[in-house]
Amino acid sequence: MPLKKSWVASANSADHPFPLNNLPYGVFSTKNTEPRCGVAIGDMIFDITAAEADGLVALSDEPLFDLPFWNPLMEEGPAVWAALRNRLTTLLAEGTDARHKVENLLVPQSEAQMHMPFAVSEYTDFYAGRHHAQNVGTMFRGAENALPPNWLHIPIGYNGRASSVVVSGTDIRRPWGQLKGPNDDAPRFAPSLRFDIELEMGAIVGTPSDGPISVQQADDHIFGYVLLNDWSARDIQAWEYQPLGPFQAKATATSVSPWIVTKAALEPFRCDTPARVVELLDHLKDCGPMLYDIDLSVTMAPESQTATTIANTNYNQMYYSAAQQLAHHSTSGCPMNTGDLLGSGTISGPTKPERGSLLELSWGGKEPLTLDTGETRSFIEDGDTLTLKGTARGDGYTIGFGDCVGTVLPALANPYET
Amino acid sequence: MPLKKSWVASANSADHPFPLNNLPYGVFSTKNTEPRCGVAIGDMIFDITAAEADGLVALSDEPLFDLPFWNPLMEEGPAVWAALRNRLTTLLAEGTDARHKVENLLVPQSEAQMHMPFAVSEYTDFYAGRHHAQNVGTMFRGAENALPPNWLHIPIGYNGRASSVVVSGTDIRRPWGQLKGPNDDAPRFAPSLRFDIELEMGAIVGTPSDGPISVQQADDHIFGYVLLNDWSARDIQAWEYQPLGPFQAKATATSVSPWIVTKAALEPFRCDTPARVVELLDHLKDCGPMLYDIDLSVTMAPESQTATTIANTNYNQMYYSAAQQLAHHSTSGCPMNTGDLLGSGTISGPTKPERGSLLELSWGGKEPLTLDTGETRSFIEDGDTLTLKGTARGDGYTIGFGDCVGTVLPALANPYET
Repeated sequence: MPLKKSWVASANSADHPFPLNNLPYGVFSTKNTEPRCGVAIGDMIFDITAAEADGLVALSDEPLFDLPFWNPLMEEGPAVWAALRNRLTTLLAEGTDARHKVENLLVPQSEAQMHMPFAVSEYTDFYAGRHHAQNVGTMFRGAENALPPNWLHIPIGYNGRASSVVVSGTDIRRPWGQLKGPNDDAPRFAPSLRFDIELEMGAIVGTPSDGPISVQQADDHIFGYVLLNDWSARDIQAWEYQPLGPFQAKATATSVSPWIVTKAALEPFRCDTPARVVELLDHLKDCGPMLYDIDLSVTMAPESQTATTIANTNYNQMYYSAAQQLAHHSTSGCPMNTGDLLGSGTISGPTKPERGSLLELSWGGKEPLTLDTGETRSFIEDGDTLTLKGTARGDGYTIGFGDCVGTVLPALANPYET
Repeated sequence: MPLKKSWVASANSADHPFPLNNLPYGVFSTKNTEPRCGVAIGDMIFDITAAEADGLVALSDEPLFDLPFWNPLMEEGPAVWAALRNRLTTLLAEGTDARHKVENLLVPQSEAQMHMPFAVSEYTDFYAGRHHAQNVGTMFRGAENALPPNWLHIPIGYNGRASSVVVSGTDIRRPWGQLKGPNDDAPRFAPSLRFDIELEMGAIVGTPSDGPISVQQADDHIFGYVLLNDWSARDIQAWEYQPLGPFQAKATATSVSPWIVTKAALEPFRCDTPARVVELLDHLKDCGPMLYDIDLSVTMAPESQTATTIANTNYNQMYYSAAQQLAHHSTSGCPMNTGDLLGSGTISGPTKPERGSLLELSWGGKEPLTLDTGETRSFIEDGDTLTLKGTARGDGYTIGFGDCVGTVLPALANPYET
């Protein structure tokens, strides 16, 4: 599928992240407007809340865009999702009759502030990247025992904390926590010294389910994808995670990119999961290409300095697709809801420059990175800005995600000192 | 504090669970009314949604009881909570002038169906009962290594699944899941054969926080308590829980009792946590009695047969209070919200009849229980009804919680068979 031409000229460049082929969904505000729903097209945002109020977009008897999040549309299901995409494509394509009406509803992205594009119902984070699991397991348990016994049979994951999910651009405060190194006599309460990123994709559940669903059904329930950075305090995690899993180490914040890229926009980039090491049981078997070929990268910039690219990888490195994760999530009868967010797990490729966390890149701090500025890093230092980028490259066009950015601020003074 | 007398005669018995001293909050419906907020008094429910509409209860400019859950009141904070309790006590006490108005707003509990009393924002389950952790640890790792190294320093816990929390009386469907016994060559997908209860108390967060809070502050944020049964598939758990903790094993359902017993009603029953084995760090130190002396029991009834009491214990057996759990939950900066539910962890006492799970009572299935009917049980069988009860015994009165009941239904046919 080639580039689709829009009358919004900036959308027609082969390397612009938001061509007519993309049409990602966000929530924005301006000096003059409260947060509302919008669609990115080139350098502009189409104010769909206003378009619905004007009758230019009419998908349902009830308004779908009068709240500052996309959940009401997400709940409607695939037929309405497709109807919206068709309508948007008609309104924004070259040659449309509606141009003069739509033009009045375009806002420059440079004048907009972005907000969370959806209300997060619950947040689950998986551990489904094989190279990441192999790397982390090797560091902690040795190469022989790197992968836990269940790893090749189920996409293991844990429930995260929905209240801590924030939109790109939100500053991240270095957390305090209880820490105890392997050689310490006793734990202490201190700011995390091993604060890290996790490069992930987030899948967003559109339609709810109330019992076990198949991998194919799960794929149908997914609405779209965002970039996701699961900020992780490795020292808090090391002390707390046995036997119940990560808890406060992952509860400070999880950042997501501001635009939901729909499954429809990603269709041309579907690809298969890697070959199975052991056969999956029927309920988790692959039944079609459900990963996506999306180039991913991470940059790190010390305060007021230029950014260094520290990792390049691809979403196609995952061992399990989001559809397999959602199917597994439902096996117990667990009700899944509109707005549930599923983190893929850290995405690392097979070689060192493809690693999606500082834990792996610096090999637990033993091999610090050297940035282009000459500074070295094992983990994040105060003032560092971390940016995730995602791009799917089509035939003469690009599907971009909008950066997922966060700057780490110094820890607060001891909140418990009196 | 003795029994406070009400003009609702049934409330004045020394062993009635809902005297004027209690005033727990629930959500009910009848043949003629949609779900609405109500307060238990004796055998009746005071329809506070109607009372607010009539102007008989007026705490705020905005209505607090026009939605079928108590979250709007919970969010208001301690001053409004106290004002409501005072107003209810005035309206329902012997000698009030308002009796004729209130009488019209009483509904017999026998004619009411109960619903979830609050909207669960997020659900966290802790592992803070020392005897339970000791028992489970001994079974899995031997008595020497029973308690994980972090256990005496932090109330360890994991994020559960809010979507699976249901009100007492909801039937529980035996889950399917991926299972692999220690002697099996490969995992299989099958209904859980080791389906279990966990006897817990649930603490409900009233006012939100957005950064670290102290134990004293945390106690102030808690609105009230419910009984909680964290249904657990031990065989799913055994296979999945390393290294990320329980996931699908705990996602089928968690039942809560229908009435929120407020912290105010429990004031006379405050008690200290047990002596510390090692000193806690400052941010988790006890700063007053924050556990409660509440007798707890579990009964089990095979289908259509009489119930056998299988466990008796007390909430005062916990090693950590809910306030300590909430304080720990906030250390990383994790935002806590109105309606967050914190499960205490399984409450077991030091002796065998005090154990709060079948896993412990049957010692992993090795010592099946004999019920009064003559049947034996290692874990739950289809048709079994499990009931948790909670009672605080005052001077001439009783604070009851309302039973937390669930009947286990047979697993569905294989949801993935085609």
